[in-house]
Amino acid sequence: MNTATQRVVRWNNAVRSNAVDELAIEEPLEIRIDTQPFVVTMRTPGNDEELAAGFLFTEGLVSSRDAFTRIRVNRRNRAGNSIDIFLSPGVAVNLDQLKRRSFVSSSCGICGKESIRALRKKFKPVRLRLAVPAPLLLDLPNQLRRTQPTFDRTGGLHAAGIFTQGGRLVVAREDIGRHNAVDKVIGFGLLNNLLPFENHILVVSGRASFEIIQKSIAAKIPIVCAVSAPSSLAVAFARANAQTLIGFIREKRMNVYCGRQRVRFR
Amino acid sequence: MNTATQRVVRWNNAVRSNAVDELAIEEPLEIRIDTQPFVVTMRTPGNDEELAAGFLFTEGLVSSRDAFTRIRVNRRNRAGNSIDIFLSPGVAVNLDQLKRRSFVSSSCGICGKESIRALRKKFKPVRLRLAVPAPLLLDLPNQLRRTQPTFDRTGGLHAAGIFTQGGRLVVAREDIGRHNAVDKVIGFGLLNNLLPFENHILVVSGRASFEIIQKSIAAKIPIVCAVSAPSSLAVAFARANAQTLIGFIREKRMNVYCGRQRVRFR
Repeated sequence: MNTATQRVVRWNNAVRSNAVDELAIEEPLEIRIDTQPFVVTMRTPGNDEELAAGFLFTEGLVSSRDAFTRIRVNRRNRAGNSIDIFLSPGVAVNLDQLKRRSFVSSSCGICGKESIRALRKKFKPVRLRLAVPAPLLLDLPNQLRRTQPTFDRTGGLHAAGIFTQGGRLVVAREDIGRHNAVDKVIGFGLLNNLLPFENHILVVSGRASFEIIQKSIAAKIPIVCAVSAPSSLAVAFARANAQTLIGFIREKRMNVYCGRQRVRFR
Repeated sequence: MNTATQRVVRWNNAVRSNAVDELAIEEPLEIRIDTQPFVVTMRTPGNDEELAAGFLFTEGLVSSRDAFTRIRVNRRNRAGNSIDIFLSPGVAVNLDQLKRRSFVSSSCGICGKESIRALRKKFKPVRLRLAVPAPLLLDLPNQLRRTQPTFDRTGGLHAAGIFTQGGRLVVAREDIGRHNAVDKVIGFGLLNNLLPFENHILVVSGRASFEIIQKSIAAKIPIVCAVSAPSSLAVAFARANAQTLIGFIREKRMNVYCGRQRVRFR
């Protein structure tokens, strides 16, 4: 249940009617670490354990499943919008690392190139010699879309899917936030000991921003396909990490922005 | 210049070619307050003074143009990705207020309803008796799109526009982040002493999330139109603030989610 119904007044070609519309649900999720409030993100409820685990992993706060003992819904929050992560003995989370992304605590040269350099230190470039036929890639957005009945009804949910290099769907998740959908599929990988996704392909239903690429690099995903446009920084960052980035992948066409050696065109 | 060109390998109907694609630029912007690093947001360069001013205003950190003496680019950052705001004597910014949104410092009941209650305390509901003919509203997305030549080229930029109740465009801005585009148009209003926009209409080119509604309420905008879907929390929050929220406004149709009294259907 990631949608809610809502009565609306519809105006269509100068005719007014009452109708029922279906909305994507957006609610806050509080993530607590060892019962201490840590972060709040707006998300579509569902697979919250994956979201919390994936968020901590893709932001570089935990590096493996061993870092925590349990993830469970905080039942004291009756709306179901709070989740607890309990760290393993001896594990500490560096909160400053997260804060630095949005709250600059020390002066740094803020420009695309320097940001990329800083992030390259954190994650190793993808180096895998993987090559996938172009027709196989072209079919992945269709597969992802078939898992996503909600989008057609609400127009409001993004999807992310992880596929094997043979084109088999491993996991697909939806969320109102594109970054959350990616955190959920990577969190699924973390919780099921499937990481790194180094022989896999990430497909996202919308655009590819810097943030999406950053998260995919954390999971060592060599190929990222976006149904819509990538940003300039997404391309720069994917290239700096030797990743393959494909955009506008729709029907029979796609643009390969970098890492073309992983696409077999014939 | 909010786009960059990029060479790509294009695959179209089994034919491979080299092509040049145009990307929406995404770069970080550091906002400093009295030369202290404060926040970093990913944005499309351009109108950064508006973005910084609008961000501080819509997040409730400053309440008027008088709160600061100057906004100017920090020239020590050669990439142009840092901006300085200098507060007026005696003005202090409550940083905790911002942190609370994403970094919960004290336990709070995280659920849609409680969040709405907390935010209602911050901003007064919109109460204006304004009514606009439906055909006038239907034309606004077309007007906004005419100001936005970039989207057709990159598919990557969101637009936000402020219109008078008579349907005249006041200001339109583009950004890779929908919330940034809204901050820019509201920042334009703040810097030009046009706030509150209480006789105005906000049109956004994409979806309406909770965050967009929150920002529009800060500027007292009575009517918000989104070309795509609103979220459940966007509708709940708009209704709680007596705002009119319209979604899927395209060509000859629209859905009115709440505040229908501001739409004259005949």
